[in-house]
Amino acid sequence: MYKVHCLNNISPVGLANLKEGYELTDDINEADAILVRSADMHEMEIPANLKVVARAGAGVNNIPLDKFAEAGIAVFNTPGANANAVKELVLAGMFMAARDIVGGIEWVKANADDPNVGKAAEKAKKQFAGGEIMGKTLGVIGLGAIGRLVVGAAEALGMKVVGYDPFLDAEKAAAISENMTFVTDLADLYPVCDYITIHVPAMATTKGMINAEAFAQMKDGVVFLNFARDTLVNDADLAAACEAGKVARYVTDFANPAVVKIPAALVIPHLGASTAEAEDNCATMAVNSVMAYLEEGNTFHKVN
Amino acid sequence: MYKVHCLNNISPVGLANLKEGYELTDDINEADAILVRSADMHEMEIPANLKVVARAGAGVNNIPLDKFAEAGIAVFNTPGANANAVKELVLAGMFMAARDIVGGIEWVKANADDPNVGKAAEKAKKQFAGGEIMGKTLGVIGLGAIGRLVVGAAEALGMKVVGYDPFLDAEKAAAISENMTFVTDLADLYPVCDYITIHVPAMATTKGMINAEAFAQMKDGVVFLNFARDTLVNDADLAAACEAGKVARYVTDFANPAVVKIPAALVIPHLGASTAEAEDNCATMAVNSVMAYLEEGNTFHKVN
Repeated sequence: MYKVHCLNNISPVGLANLKEGYELTDDINEADAILVRSADMHEMEIPANLKVVARAGAGVNNIPLDKFAEAGIAVFNTPGANANAVKELVLAGMFMAARDIVGGIEWVKANADDPNVGKAAEKAKKQFAGGEIMGKTLGVIGLGAIGRLVVGAAEALGMKVVGYDPFLDAEKAAAISENMTFVTDLADLYPVCDYITIHVPAMATTKGMINAEAFAQMKDGVVFLNFARDTLVNDADLAAACEAGKVARYVTDFANPAVVKIPAALVIPHLGASTAEAEDNCATMAVNSVMAYLEEGNTFHKVN
Repeated sequence: MYKVHCLNNISPVGLANLKEGYELTDDINEADAILVRSADMHEMEIPANLKVVARAGAGVNNIPLDKFAEAGIAVFNTPGANANAVKELVLAGMFMAARDIVGGIEWVKANADDPNVGKAAEKAKKQFAGGEIMGKTLGVIGLGAIGRLVVGAAEALGMKVVGYDPFLDAEKAAAISENMTFVTDLADLYPVCDYITIHVPAMATTKGMINAEAFAQMKDGVVFLNFARDTLVNDADLAAACEAGKVARYVTDFANPAVVKIPAALVIPHLGASTAEAEDNCATMAVNSVMAYLEEGNTFHKVN
C-alpha cells in the first residue's frame, strides 16, 4: 500500500485516478508520495518514506529539486496540463489591454445610481476606447506548451506572430506554425511587435531578462503580457518604461508590491491555471506520474 | 459643391475620403448630407437641402427611417464595418464570464498596499477561479456580419457552436461554417448551450425576445452575452433568472438602471465599436455611400 499526502487541495477528479493499492493520508511523515500545487517545500524536512513528489502544474520553483534528487526523491511536473487555461487568460489580457474594458466596467459600477446611466455612458465611453488585436503583431517569447497554443489562437484571430525560443530550430518552429515568423534573436522580435507575451520558465538565465535594454528595443506603446513568472521582469525598469509611455500596458498574473503600484499595470491574482479543467488535468497527470514511477520506474516528466 | 455636416465626431481617416466637390459645414441647415453616429435624430427638424444621411455603424434606431423616406431622404448604414471590433469584445466578455477576472483585478487594487500582496493573492484567488471556454458550446442567435465572425473565432478557440438565424437556410448556414450546428428553432439552441450570444437588430419583432420563457429553456448557469441592443432582453425576467441562478453571468454592452443593479451582470459602457479601426472603417464606408448615392444614385446599404 502506497500512502499519498496532498500538500495543497488537489482536484477530486484527479485523485479519483488513484488505483487500488494507494490511499490518501493526512500524515506527511508516512507519505510515499506528495502531491503539491503552490506550497513552498524549500524549508520542509524530508519525510522518511518519501519517494516521489508530483507538482500539479508546470513551474517547480516551490520545490528544492537538487535537495530531493540527492535524497533519491523524484520530482514530476505536469507541463501542458494547464496550457489552455493560461492561453485563454493571455487572450483575455490582450483584449483588456486593447480597450480599457475594466475601466469601463468600473465606470458603470460607479454610476449605477444614475437614472440616465445609458446616456451618460455614451458620453463617457470615449475614454475607454482603444484598438483591435486583428492585424497587429504579437511576439511570443518561449514556444513551449503554452506559447504554441497562444500562437495558434492569435493567428486564428488575425494577428501576425513572431516567435522566439532558444531551444527550437527553424524546422521545429515551422511545425508549430508555418505562418509564424521565427527569429533566433530577440533583437529581431522586440522592434516589430505591438503585443509581446512571455512563456519561459523562471531560471537563473531568465531572471530579469525583460529589462531596460529589452524595453528600449520595443515599439513605443507596446503591450507586454507576463503570465509566466514575475522574476522574468526587472520591476524598476518596467516602472520606468511605463512612466515613459514605452509600455502602454503591462498585463500580468503576478502581484508584487512594486508592480501593483504602476498605473499602467493590469494585475490579475494568479488566475492562469485557475480553471476547473486545468486543475483536473494537472491532478490527473500528477497522479498518473506518481503511479507510473512507483510501479514501473517511469521518468517521463521527471524534472530532477 | 455638396455640403456635409457631422452630427457626431467622425473619424478623420474616414472624412479624408471625401473627394473634390465636397466640403464640411458646421451649419446643419445647409447640409446636403449628414454623417451621424449615435446622436438621436428622431425629434430633429429636417434641413431643407438634406438628401442623404449615413450612419457610421450598423444600428439605425436613432434615425426616423420612415419620416426621412417620406421626405425623400435616403438613409445608409455601415453593416460589417465594426464587426471585428464587436467580435473581439464578445470574446473578451466570454473570458471575463468564464473566470472572475474583473473581480480579481479589483481585489489586487484593493490590496495594493499589502507588502505581501503576492502571497495574499495566492490565498484569495480561489474565489475568482472558473472554467475554460474550450470544449463548451456557444449559441449564436443571428448570423449576420458580427454573428458569423463570432462563430469563426469561437470554433478556432475550440468551442462547439450552435447557430440560429431566421433569414438563413441550411445551405447558407453551412457556408458560414460546416462544423456549426444550424437550428431553425431557438428551442433547439437554448437547452444545449453553455454560452449564448445574440446578434440581431432591435425591431418590434425582436423586442423582449429574451424573456422568462426563453430563460426557462436555457441550461442552469448559462452565460448570456448581449452586445446587440438592450431592448432584446426583458430586464425583469433577466433579473429573476440571475437571482435564481439560471443565468450565471449576463455580459452586456448596454447600461440601463435595471441591469446595472443586477449583481450577476457585467456591464460595459457600449465599447463594442469603440476601436480606432472600427471608427475608421465605419466612417470610410459612410462617406463612400454618401458620395456614391449623390453622384450615381447607388443604394447599396440603403436602409429606408
